[in-house]
Amino acid sequence: MTKKWVYTLDEIDQAEAAVDGDWDRVRGLLGGKGANLGEMNRLGVPVPPGFTITTEACNSYLELGGKFPPELWEQALAALRTMEEQTGKRFGDPLNPLLVSCRSGAKFSMPGMMDTVLDIGLNDEVTEGMIKLTGNEHFAYDSYRRLIQMFGTVVLGVRDEPFEDALASQREKRGVSSDADLTGDDFRVIVDKFKEIVRRNARTEFPSNAEDQLQMATRAVFDSWNGKRARDYREAAGIAHDLGTGVNVITMVYGNLGDDSATGVAMSRNATTGENVLEGDYLTNAQGEDVVAGTRPTKPMEQLKTEMPQIYSEFESIARRLEKHYRDMQDMEFTVERGKLWILQTRTGKRTAQAAVRIAVDLADEGLISREEAVLRVAPAQIEFFLHPQFSAAAKAGHPVIARGLNVSPGAATGVVAFDPDLAERWVKEDGRDVLLVRPETKPDDVHGMLVARGILTSSGGRTSHAALVARQFGKPAVVGAHELKIDLGTRSMTVDSLVVHEGEWLSIDGTTGEVFVGKLDTVVPDMDDEWLARLMEWADEFRRLGIRANADYPEDAERARKYGAEGIGLCRTEHMFFQPERLPTVQRMITTRSPAERREAVNALLPFQRADFAGLFRAMDGLPVIIRLIDPPLHEFLPGFEELSRELTDLQIRITGARTLEEIEGITAKLSETQSMLDKVNSLRESNPMLGLRGVRLGILIPELTRMQVRAVFEAACEVTREGGKAIPEIMIPLTSHVNELRRQRQVLEAEAREVMDEQGIEVSYQFGTMIEVPRAALTADQIAEYAEFLSFGTNDLTQTTFAMSRDDAESGFLMRYLKEGILPANPFATLDEAGVGKLMRLAVTEARKTRPDIETGVCGEHGGDPASIEICDRLGLDYVSCSPYRVPVARLSAAQSALRARSQG
Amino acid sequence: MTKKWVYTLDEIDQAEAAVDGDWDRVRGLLGGKGANLGEMNRLGVPVPPGFTITTEACNSYLELGGKFPPELWEQALAALRTMEEQTGKRFGDPLNPLLVSCRSGAKFSMPGMMDTVLDIGLNDEVTEGMIKLTGNEHFAYDSYRRLIQMFGTVVLGVRDEPFEDALASQREKRGVSSDADLTGDDFRVIVDKFKEIVRRNARTEFPSNAEDQLQMATRAVFDSWNGKRARDYREAAGIAHDLGTGVNVITMVYGNLGDDSATGVAMSRNATTGENVLEGDYLTNAQGEDVVAGTRPTKPMEQLKTEMPQIYSEFESIARRLEKHYRDMQDMEFTVERGKLWILQTRTGKRTAQAAVRIAVDLADEGLISREEAVLRVAPAQIEFFLHPQFSAAAKAGHPVIARGLNVSPGAATGVVAFDPDLAERWVKEDGRDVLLVRPETKPDDVHGMLVARGILTSSGGRTSHAALVARQFGKPAVVGAHELKIDLGTRSMTVDSLVVHEGEWLSIDGTTGEVFVGKLDTVVPDMDDEWLARLMEWADEFRRLGIRANADYPEDAERARKYGAEGIGLCRTEHMFFQPERLPTVQRMITTRSPAERREAVNALLPFQRADFAGLFRAMDGLPVIIRLIDPPLHEFLPGFEELSRELTDLQIRITGARTLEEIEGITAKLSETQSMLDKVNSLRESNPMLGLRGVRLGILIPELTRMQVRAVFEAACEVTREGGKAIPEIMIPLTSHVNELRRQRQVLEAEAREVMDEQGIEVSYQFGTMIEVPRAALTADQIAEYAEFLSFGTNDLTQTTFAMSRDDAESGFLMRYLKEGILPANPFATLDEAGVGKLMRLAVTEARKTRPDIETGVCGEHGGDPASIEICDRLGLDYVSCSPYRVPVARLSAAQSALRARSQG
Repeated sequence: MTKKWVYTLDEIDQAEAAVDGDWDRVRGLLGGKGANLGEMNRLGVPVPPGFTITTEACNSYLELGGKFPPELWEQALAALRTMEEQTGKRFGDPLNPLLVSCRSGAKFSMPGMMDTVLDIGLNDEVTEGMIKLTGNEHFAYDSYRRLIQMFGTVVLGVRDEPFEDALASQREKRGVSSDADLTGDDFRVIVDKFKEIVRRNARTEFPSNAEDQLQMATRAVFDSWNGKRARDYREAAGIAHDLGTGVNVITMVYGNLGDDSATGVAMSRNATTGENVLEGDYLTNAQGEDVVAGTRPTKPMEQLKTEMPQIYSEFESIARRLEKHYRDMQDMEFTVERGKLWILQTRTGKRTAQAAVRIAVDLADEGLISREEAVLRVAPAQIEFFLHPQFSAAAKAGHPVIARGLNVSPGAATGVVAFDPDLAERWVKEDGRDVLLVRPETKPDDVHGMLVARGILTSSGGRTSHAALVARQFGKPAVVGAHELKIDLGTRSMTVDSLVVHEGEWLSIDGTTGEVFVGKLDTVVPDMDDEWLARLMEWADEFRRLGIRANADYPEDAERARKYGAEGIGLCRTEHMFFQPERLPTVQRMITTRSPAERREAVNALLPFQRADFAGLFRAMDGLPVIIRLIDPPLHEFLPGFEELSRELTDLQIRITGARTLEEIEGITAKLSETQSMLDKVNSLRESNPMLGLRGVRLGILIPELTRMQVRAVFEAACEVTREGGKAIPEIMIPLTSHVNELRRQRQVLEAEAREVMDEQGIEVSYQFGTMIEVPRAALTADQIAEYAEFLSFGTNDLTQTTFAMSRDDAESGFLMRYLKEGILPANPFATLDEAGVGKLMRLAVTEARKTRPDIETGVCGEHGGDPASIEICDRLGLDYVSCSPYRVPVARLSAAQSALRARSQG
Repeated sequence: MTKKWVYTLDEIDQAEAAVDGDWDRVRGLLGGKGANLGEMNRLGVPVPPGFTITTEACNSYLELGGKFPPELWEQALAALRTMEEQTGKRFGDPLNPLLVSCRSGAKFSMPGMMDTVLDIGLNDEVTEGMIKLTGNEHFAYDSYRRLIQMFGTVVLGVRDEPFEDALASQREKRGVSSDADLTGDDFRVIVDKFKEIVRRNARTEFPSNAEDQLQMATRAVFDSWNGKRARDYREAAGIAHDLGTGVNVITMVYGNLGDDSATGVAMSRNATTGENVLEGDYLTNAQGEDVVAGTRPTKPMEQLKTEMPQIYSEFESIARRLEKHYRDMQDMEFTVERGKLWILQTRTGKRTAQAAVRIAVDLADEGLISREEAVLRVAPAQIEFFLHPQFSAAAKAGHPVIARGLNVSPGAATGVVAFDPDLAERWVKEDGRDVLLVRPETKPDDVHGMLVARGILTSSGGRTSHAALVARQFGKPAVVGAHELKIDLGTRSMTVDSLVVHEGEWLSIDGTTGEVFVGKLDTVVPDMDDEWLARLMEWADEFRRLGIRANADYPEDAERARKYGAEGIGLCRTEHMFFQPERLPTVQRMITTRSPAERREAVNALLPFQRADFAGLFRAMDGLPVIIRLIDPPLHEFLPGFEELSRELTDLQIRITGARTLEEIEGITAKLSETQSMLDKVNSLRESNPMLGLRGVRLGILIPELTRMQVRAVFEAACEVTREGGKAIPEIMIPLTSHVNELRRQRQVLEAEAREVMDEQGIEVSYQFGTMIEVPRAALTADQIAEYAEFLSFGTNDLTQTTFAMSRDDAESGFLMRYLKEGILPANPFATLDEAGVGKLMRLAVTEARKTRPDIETGVCGEHGGDPASIEICDRLGLDYVSCSPYRVPVARLSAAQSALRARSQG
């Protein structure tokens, strides 16, 4: 028996049986489109009759070097006869012609990558027959010229330009601007010209025989599987080259045969809001491409209800049936040909984040899917939509992108440009203006301006620049490193190519995409209180195993984190508190003085600030744990930059040579000596690799009074909150530990201080003592570390840097991008945890630590804590929690739930 | 039965039996000194009679709060009676008095930490009796006053000053300068004064009863175990506090009773050369302290042979016996009392490195020890002696140390000071002078001066500074970071405090100790060809398992390494070749150009240099493997420093404001623009953490033409040497790999290049392809890495930096020193491998790699490869070889042998 190469749409059961009922293999055999058409047909959905030539046939054809395998064409012709029976029309018969389309359809969708020919079956006689049948010369000849054009380009390899030129010259001759204004006669002329083009370019006649047309089109589809475009696409998308494509031969139906004909596209639910109503557009007496092209204004589906009530109701019931079958919202194409509804395609509909949430929840409520599936249906990144303002697509459409930078903190922001933080503050506070702070880069001094701004835009800096970190922390939309912007602080303006934007003019940025727009774009503000979201998150929380904490340095952050569902603070970076303008001078005094007494004084001056900060955190997180990391960054970060000071010094040296009066000279000399002295201090703190230098616990050991002060502040605050009736649960965390002795030493000193405070205050505070694991050695010796640590928090940013020996700042603006582009690294390890390397080290650490202390608490507090793929890795590692910025908490909750559900389904 | 608290020297067998013959426990029971005296006595060596009170007695005494346990004193008195019988003298009997010493003696030697009282048994009557017996009033009263003084200070707690004052005032009164010139009558007066001092200061009479004296002295020794000095010493030396001390009561013998008496100290072999002859000094009619104090010129042992031939011969035979018993060269104290030889002490003798080697080999030849023991007897560091010139002790004694720096490259060097490399070169090449190159710090530009200099001295920089690395590489003695030196290049002089040294004056440095001397010190040059050393190293090579390779970048280094026993090159740092003055401009052009063509041209210009270098290496290592590491350091290292350029720019900017003529302005402007352009390039290459930046394989991937050129050079050189009849075995090594894909990519590109060269040349070269493991991620994923690497070489310097997240440059001049001082880290991990952390990672890497490729070759090429403790760790890790600088090769060979022998003895 020869192989069955061809299945009519009615033979879907047979196809299914041939592959043991495995639907994935049905799609493999027939291609996605063919399988889907068969499936709809089986469901009783009105699909135009047709058949599918299998992917196996394609593969045989290619193996045979471009020859049909035996019986293939005979089976195809037999299927064509069946179509003729079903439609009552005959292929190539001028009296009642059957016209068909011939399309590719592979297992996985490869949009636009392979070829299609429509209106197969037309020739001079059949076209005349069509005119008789429809009375529509324009339609018939337009279809005919389309066939010749498509066939010429797709099958015969003629370039498209001569066809388009011929059309254009005919329009010009007739003095019209649109093909629709050409007459049937015009198209007759064009058909002749097109035949001539084919003859001249392909050195062959356009075939007038219908079966020849179909056979040649089928070969062209097969051949297109190995076209360069398709191969490149498969390489990029990771699709195997040996799958082959199916060929779908389907009866043509026409929505442009009069007012009882129509064509349209509709979603089974509203794709923007998720509401359960049909949503879409259609046109009467039109072809599908007219709807897409927007050449005529479309009508909303609503109107079909009155215009063709019967059709509408039939369509609605089909939509319900397809949703029920595919268990998701559907995006359908339909055509009404002389009062008869045909469904040409259905697929899962694209939707906004808001709609995705509502549809998932509704489908679960309707019993179509389980709650687990609902939770899995929403991409974690979509949750961000509910947290940040957005530009509508319409708003964006009206404004060109003038520059692009790194999308470091999501959300849309619009405001007038202010080039310095003081001005930004004044405009916001005094004039109530919306401001965008625009700077070459930001520094701790700029924070007050950043806090009042709607958003932040810089022309340099990377994903870990000051601007990026602060913006993410405060949920401010930000775009950084937009190199095309030339900011001139002197003239208070910036230019992009020839465009100039002055201070005070409106500008908009999209921190989700990294785009910069001139002008004021409308923003829409979604809402975390959305009732469907709330229910989805509730379900997610039931499913997840991982705890979710937030990184928060200030009480406001902690409150927001708690509102978003954080179950504790996983990281409070105490040094951020030092950067506030009223504190920074004290911090600088502490660093620069050589007198121990003065240093002690400065440290003590910081105590009340820190205590108040911590008390605020404890109040916000009442009853939940708060991990407080002691001071971490190198001290030079609190001082002015070396180069800035050097420049100042140079300026002064140049000025002094130009000074004329003694007074002037004295003034400059005094300033010189002051600047020189600061420069000396900064210089003495400079390190060749600050990342690997004097920071973290190393600072704590060298300046114990500083960490002692911090611990005192923590415990005084905890006692204060306890006295108020609250419940403070501090967890003291030591950064950058590499050797157990560092931890042992610090624990001794700091627990003594804690004891002292609790004794002074007469209050017992239950607390834990632990460490960051951000240095490979700490991970390797976690068994020893665990003797002194009650919890471990993986600082995966630094751990990734040290494990890869890769400085993020340097790499992300340099070779790392090249590595990603060339596929040397599969993903940016700073965005998604490197499971094979860093993850292996983490697994080792967890295993070793549990040997010493089986119940040791483990978590992640790097930026990976907010990345869905990394959260799944942390879940697999068996960590207790992940901690991320407050704005990522909902994302993390959903990711953790999905991870748990996937793990469950994998057994 | 009560406990036995006291053992006479004759009862050593009993003591041994009491602790089951465990000699370690005998030392624990009797203390080291007591056990040793008993042992000598058992061997028939003439030891003055005496007894030992056990450490258990001491512990009981201390536990009882300062009371003798029952029977202790009775047993002591009984032992005293035995001494009386053996000596025929009686304790406290003026007619024939027994005098004894009372000394502490703990299990482990604690020199000077506890107390001793001599001449116990003297009082007014006994002293008179002594005069009658000896006819020597001076001797008797001098002894008596010594007893009162020692007893007063040690037992009664009187300060020493009043005693010394009294002695001084008597000398003054008599107008003499030495106690030896005082008469018996003078000492009588002094004795009275001393008794008065005791009475006044201790508020008690000096006890005249002999047994009271002994009992009080015994208590004082017991008490001294818990004295502050002793406790501190034990803390520092890690000796347990509960061991207790023994008390040795031994008959006094005197070498100052006439010309038939003598006293001396002698070694059983020459401690400087190791020659097998007695070596020592003695004095006739003198006390032991006279020999030590050097108040009288001593006589060499040689002379005793003629002066007291019988005694000499007896002593010689005892020395042989003791050597045979203790199986090592002995350092002995002896006294001849009226023609009778007594041995007072024997211990293992200290010796020079040269003697250590010869003695170990001779002892093995004599059959006293095995060859294995001989190899274990020599400390690896002692081998260095044979490699570098040294200052003699005498030379050093005559010249004060004017400054100290870091001892970064061992050996002694002396020469005239040259402050710049060109001058150094001229003086050496044209005038044949010995030169010391003295610089604030060195740079690649200075290398020609460093190469011709005898030694290098810098006032700044650390152990990894350019000066240190280059000096070690070339075996040049060097002292760096001698901060006390103020070098003034303007006046061509340097000052230390008020001392000024001008260019051209003689200076000497000791790179072994870090000392700097003014003047020309004599040096002695030892010799690796020493015959005993050769035999020892031959034995070592038989015992070791680890292979030893050398790090060598130039043919001369490779030749030296081979001469010193290297079995291959473990690391050739190809970039060192780039720093040579005639190549550096080409390298800089390659880096700074933006034109690909110009870059290619520069790269190709480097090819012949590299080929010649490699050919030289292959010739030197004919038949042995040569690992060639492709370019590693960040490119900015080849350019001038950012700050240097900035300074230049500032200078130019200042100069231009002062310029007067147009010509001047134009000149400066041109220079400005050139400097600015270089500065821009340098700036564009700057990284916040260069250690973690664009270097190693990352460079190779970004600039493939550079590494391709290097591989071409390697293979062209290998073919060239093969054609000459030599055997080149290149191993191509990729640095800084962190991900297997880097290696896969590089291997593809580089093997293709290798193939091309071999095809061009028509010669097949067998080679290996491998990688450094210096990034934690590479170690963690060694199973993947091993798919593409045929060998792994641990770069333990960088691996330590990244595993600890500790930049060596920054840490060693900062917090690391504090960590070591405070014991937070047990050792400097850059000097000795951190077994618990870095070692664990290495073990994991080796295990994982062998899963993929069981026969993978593994080694270490960091500085740890030359450190004995680290070599032992590498041996335990099962690595195949260690690689170190040529000058460390012999040290490494010995260390590896010792490691193997220790492993063997452990089982």
